[in-house]
Formats: sequence, C-alpha cells, structure tokens
Amino acid sequence: MQQVNVGVIGLGNVGSGTLEVLAENASQIALKLGFELRVSTVCSRTVESKQLPAALGKVKRTQDWREVVADSGVDIVAELVGGTSVAQEIIDGAIANKKSVVTANKELMASCGAQIWERAIAAGINLAMEASVAGGIPIHTVLREGISGDRVVALYGILNGTSNYILTEIEKRGDPFDLVLAEAQQLGYAEADPSADIDGYDARSKLAILAALAFGERITPEDIFVEGIRRISPMDFRYAHRLGHTIRLICAARQTPDGLILSVRPALVGERTIIAGVQGAYNAVWVKGRHGGDTFYYGRGAGARPTGVAVVSDLMRVAREIRSGSPQRVSPFAHERLGEYKPLEISHEKCAYYLRFRVDDRPGIIAALAGILADKGISLDSVLQEPSDNKHDLPFVITLEPTSERAVRDAVEKMSRLDFLREPPLALPMEPPL
Amino acid sequence: MQQVNVGVIGLGNVGSGTLEVLAENASQIALKLGFELRVSTVCSRTVESKQLPAALGKVKRTQDWREVVADSGVDIVAELVGGTSVAQEIIDGAIANKKSVVTANKELMASCGAQIWERAIAAGINLAMEASVAGGIPIHTVLREGISGDRVVALYGILNGTSNYILTEIEKRGDPFDLVLAEAQQLGYAEADPSADIDGYDARSKLAILAALAFGERITPEDIFVEGIRRISPMDFRYAHRLGHTIRLICAARQTPDGLILSVRPALVGERTIIAGVQGAYNAVWVKGRHGGDTFYYGRGAGARPTGVAVVSDLMRVAREIRSGSPQRVSPFAHERLGEYKPLEISHEKCAYYLRFRVDDRPGIIAALAGILADKGISLDSVLQEPSDNKHDLPFVITLEPTSERAVRDAVEKMSRLDFLREPPLALPMEPPL
Repeated sequence: MQQVNVGVIGLGNVGSGTLEVLAENASQIALKLGFELRVSTVCSRTVESKQLPAALGKVKRTQDWREVVADSGVDIVAELVGGTSVAQEIIDGAIANKKSVVTANKELMASCGAQIWERAIAAGINLAMEASVAGGIPIHTVLREGISGDRVVALYGILNGTSNYILTEIEKRGDPFDLVLAEAQQLGYAEADPSADIDGYDARSKLAILAALAFGERITPEDIFVEGIRRISPMDFRYAHRLGHTIRLICAARQTPDGLILSVRPALVGERTIIAGVQGAYNAVWVKGRHGGDTFYYGRGAGARPTGVAVVSDLMRVAREIRSGSPQRVSPFAHERLGEYKPLEISHEKCAYYLRFRVDDRPGIIAALAGILADKGISLDSVLQEPSDNKHDLPFVITLEPTSERAVRDAVEKMSRLDFLREPPLALPMEPPL
Repeated sequence: MQQVNVGVIGLGNVGSGTLEVLAENASQIALKLGFELRVSTVCSRTVESKQLPAALGKVKRTQDWREVVADSGVDIVAELVGGTSVAQEIIDGAIANKKSVVTANKELMASCGAQIWERAIAAGINLAMEASVAGGIPIHTVLREGISGDRVVALYGILNGTSNYILTEIEKRGDPFDLVLAEAQQLGYAEADPSADIDGYDARSKLAILAALAFGERITPEDIFVEGIRRISPMDFRYAHRLGHTIRLICAARQTPDGLILSVRPALVGERTIIAGVQGAYNAVWVKGRHGGDTFYYGRGAGARPTGVAVVSDLMRVAREIRSGSPQRVSPFAHERLGEYKPLEISHEKCAYYLRFRVDDRPGIIAALAGILADKGISLDSVLQEPSDNKHDLPFVITLEPTSERAVRDAVEKMSRLDFLREPPLALPMEPPL
C-alpha cells in the first residue's frame, strides 16, 4: 500500500475545513507519516457545485454516501455530516464494510459511543473522534495517550464557545443577556434557535464524552445535571467581582467517595484563576490527576480550520494504524457501570453557594430568608448589597458556607414562595479554587 | 504474549515516581491496555537498600544495567538515570538488543535525539520521550499526535520551573534576586549550582526538543540564543507593571519568512495574558498553528509523580505498539536542515524592547542616550522614571518601538561605554500579545 485513501462525507463547515487543511499541509503530512494521505472521494448533496482545493488532485465526487462506504478504494471514512440519523447509518455502513472511521459527531458519540466503539472493535477497524469535543484542543489525545498513566480525580471545562462569548460580553460591557444574545445571533456566533448552546445541552454532550474518557465509566448525557445561562445578568457579574470571582458556564465531573458528580451550569470561579481568563469563543479543559496534579488545555472550541486540524490529526493517526496493521484498541467507553465512578444525583454536591435575590423591599426580608436557611442548618458566609434607587426591585446576594445541594434546593424552593421576591432566587455554586 | 515487561533503570526522583504510579494504577492501566504492564526488573546502584512498592509483586533487582538491556524477559527499557554518558550507553545497549526505550533524558535527546531515533528506527524498536520536557504536560503527544495535522508557526514556553519560581517570588515579594535564589536553594527548589536553571541552559535543551518536534527541523541547543534571569530585579517588575506587563523566562521559536528565530531569555509579556498567569514552578507551552490557531498547555514542570505519569503514559503507548506489532514510526527529529525553518541568528529578531538603565544622575543623560538611538534609526516609544532619593543610582526605563535586535545590540554596546551608567543597560524584548 503506497498511500491511505480517505472518503470525506459532508462538506459543511468541518468538511470544508478538513479538505483545506489536508490540501495545504499535504507535503508536511506525508513527511510526518512517511506515506501519502489522499482524499479519494468526497460526498455531499451539493457536491457538484462545490469548489474543491486544487492541491487535492483528482477526487471522485458523489451525492450518495453509500457509494463511499462501499468503495473498495476507500480506507478511512470521515463522517462529517453531524446529527444522529444519517450519521449513524454512515458509521454503521463503514464498519460493515471494514472501513476505519473518523468522526466529529458529538451527539452520536455522547449517546451511542460505547455501542459504536464495540462494533468497531468487533470488526477490527479503527475509530477516532478528537473533533467531537472542543475542536481546537486535542483533549481526546491528551486523555487517551498523553496522561493515560494517571487517574483523573476531577475534570472542569468551558466547552461551549457561544455561551462563553455571551457571558464574557455581558461581563465586559454590562449589557443584559437578551441584548448580547441578539447581537451574537446577528454576528453568527449564536444560532437562530440558541437553546442547545445557552441551555447547556451542547456542553452536556461534550462533557459526557470527556467524562467517559477521563473516568472509564459509562456516562450518558442524562447522567449530567444541566442548567443554562439565561438568568445571568450584569448585576451577577458585579456581585461576583465584589466576591473576587467571575461567572462561567462550567462543565464539571468530580470524583467523590460515593461516585461522580456531573454538572453543566453557570458557576462562580476565582477571578485570578487561569480558567477565568478564558474569553470569547475559546474552550478550555482543566484536569486534576491523582499523580500528575493539575494540567490545563486551551484553544478554539469550533471553526472550520481548528476542527479540520482535529479531523486531519485523527486521519493521520488512523492511517498510521492501518499501515502498521494495528487492530482496534480497547474502547475508551465503558459498556456498563464499573461502580467506583458511578454517576450521582446532583443533590449530593457539596460546595459554597451564591444566592442572588430581587426583592420588593420591606422590613424583615433578611430575617425571613435567614430563618429559612437556619431551618435547613445552612450557615451564611456574607450578605452583599449594592446601592439601588428602586426599592421595588432591589438586588442583593447571600453567600453560603459549603453546604449540600439538597439543603440549598429545599431552601430555595421554600424561599420562592415568599411574596416579596420578584423572581425565584438564583443559586450558583462557587467552585473550589481552580 | 500475556503481558509486556518493563526494566526500569534509575531509581532517583523520576524512577521512584514511575514505580509508584505503575503500582498504584496497575488495575486501571490493565483495563486501558487490555493486557498487563509489568515491572520485571529494576536497576540502580543503591537498589538493595530501596523499598519498592509492594503492589509491583516479584521484581528482579540488579545494580548492573547491562543485565537489564540483555534480559530476554524485558520488552521495554525505561532509561531514567539522566545525564549523557551512561544514559547513552544504556539506550545504545537497549537498541542493540532490540528492546524498545522510554526515556526522560532531555540533555541526551536535545543533543543526539536525531541519531538515537535513527538507530531505533533501523532496529525496528519503539522510542518515547514525553518526560524529557515539561514532565506534567503531555506536550510531545500533543505535537506528534493531537495537532499533527496542523503546521506550527510559533511556539512559546515557560519550561524551567526554578526560574519561574524565582521570578514570580521576586514579583510577589519585591525581594532581590540573590535573596530569593538563596531561599529557593534552601527549600530545595534550586540546586547548589543553579546555573543550568537560572542561566537558561536547561530551558534551552527543552526548547531544542520542542522546536524540532514542532517544526520538523534539525535544531540543536547551539542554535538557540540564551540569556538567564540573574539581572532581573524588583525594579524591573515595577516598571513592567507600569507598562501593563510582567517578566517571565520565555522560550520562543517563531517562524519568519527567512527562517526560525529561537531564544530563551527574560521577556516582558502582557500582564493579562494567560501565560502571565503561570506562577511558581509550573510550566506552560503556547502553540500558534497556521490552521488551528492558538492552543495552550499548562502543568507541573517536574516532580516525581507528574514526571512518573509521563513515563508511564509512554510505557503504555510503547507497550500497545509492541503488542500490535507496530514498528517504529517516522522520526520526530529531522536529520538535516530542511530549509524552510532554518535557524537564524538572534540579530534577525525584530520586536519592541525594554531598556533599563541605572545612572549617576547629571544633566544631558536622556539626550546622550536618545542621540545614540537616533543614530541607529531607533524610535523611542516611552520614557519612564520612578521617583528615587539616590541620585547616584537612579533607575529609569526607555521602551523602543519595534526595531531589529541588531540595531538594539549596537546601541546597547555604544551606551555601555557612557561613564554615567552604573552597569550596562538591560535590554529585554517585549513579546507580541500572546
């Protein structure tokens, strides 16, 4: 075999970026591999109208993915169509035809990664999915290879660039959430239907994959508590700053003696921590290893070229394995609960909390709120109030000493019934110093 | 083959950390690999007096490394003795006996990496060296696998923990260099002979390895300009802060149209950049990719356990390759100059500079200095002076607009002859925003 041939299915953002990187870096890639990595076929419904990079040379074009997975000249299928239905068929088809697969598909790998990997191993083909999480950061490679000798005790991430962009814009400019979201939509940073990003579902799929790799445990998106950023306002940043913190949408997977606590939600993080320095659409992952200590990884979360680099790096790895005749390795996904890292309900979380209230001012408010906290055995750490002219919509904040999420939830529920509150209290965890 | 057997040579800091990580993580490692990774032999001059982790089971002990490299039961030799003479013999011996090698040896890989790799490939064995640079950060894996599809255009690093500890202590406490160094020596953070760390030679070896991996170019330590941190004083941090910067010992490898500019030296970096947040003995690497953009990697630079994780992760990788029968891959080191990334003299550098003076005050000083700069065609950006009572030792700073290093050196040399200067000017580059 003089070369390894790739069939690229899907010519959207990621597919186009992949072809550009492959074309522009062709000679360096051949030097690094010691053989040629060639795109033999591209497939997309609009393939006829697409301009392909000239450096790719002669490339077969088709609108039918079945042709690609059945093509005896194709060694690796790059599934870059996204979504779960056709993508699943493509991957199944490739595996059935004993072709290795590189995918950028986070939804599919988060929900069915274990099953897909099992079929790939049974068929003796290779599978890679670096581009499925945090495009520009090679976090899969780090977890599976770079620090594979360590045991992860906690993993924190900023994994949704849209949310991070919106939060850091609110922080910088002091504008309200709705205005910043509308602008982000106009600029193309947020989708017309922004829910997957701002309600945390996109980040949740990514955390499910990373937590599975980090802990070797069976983890699905449903195991992860999720809360979005819609309620975060400029005043929350003002209070957070007074507390020496900022606010980020934090994906967290943390080992406790009883199991794993998994969440995606806005949290207060120390203002001077490295993770607080992650601005705009960037992504980051913080890993705490039992032996290796803290490591931190940062880069672009998305974009045609950065994600293209992830796909191309995967293609190179899989091509090497094909050339050296290495069969599939052990799956990075566990197929069943192993026990030690069993996911727990979020009610097991225990940390400090930030409670923000908006009240119609009158005497006795603090007494009423403090009474409810005292009833639940929760200790106050501090009470902060900014000056305000509007006595009918007065914000203030209570921070709590480390306490159980269950007790906080009970207290918040009870507080929500108080008639002087203009909306239910906003409760955010204050993460330990990162 | 039911298991892969490792012979560990060297039971210092890194060797002991490696054995501890292997022992404590044995069952997870077996799960991740699908087979057992076993320490069959350990070798050290003091092996008889060493307590080995009980979980390793029955382990052969020897004081003679020749026994290990000749042992037919050993599949991988872990060379953890350091230095260049015996280490070189051990690696040569292992290769001659067709054993794969994992090494933590930065001096050896920086100076002879290309030759060692060539012999390893010829012998069909596998070689890995993650632990040789920035122990806790899997930067080799990142460059060779994670972002291998990209082309690196620049790489910046903080690669010497001792220097970074000393600089960040001077910054935090305002104490002078000599005092902080003496304390670091007492605490065991700096060696009795601190030159390798504080004069930049340790960092230079590490940069030689990383630049070779990043650019695929033949780079040796001698190609890299080096300047240590002995002249950095608390007043430099005060001036740097006034300029919105801080000072770090920066390893830099940057592509220019003419070739690579490589240096290890103290530099001003923006105070709010992520790299400025690297405190104490931590290490960090910033990579700029043509396609993937900026990525950043952070972790412990040294320490028994973090470096042990790097060695163990390498052992796992090599063990996998042995089990799957994969021969050695393409060398990460080029054997000759490829041209595109040829190292250039530091005089080709062009950036903004910080010049710090200590003068015996009198009229006409600024005029004299400005005159020399004007003669060389260099434009001043700003002049800063802190209030001082000592007119005979008055510090002040001139910053320069981007200009060539050659012109700055000529000017500094000419200035050094001026009789009002108490010491030659200190010239530091001001790095572009990271």
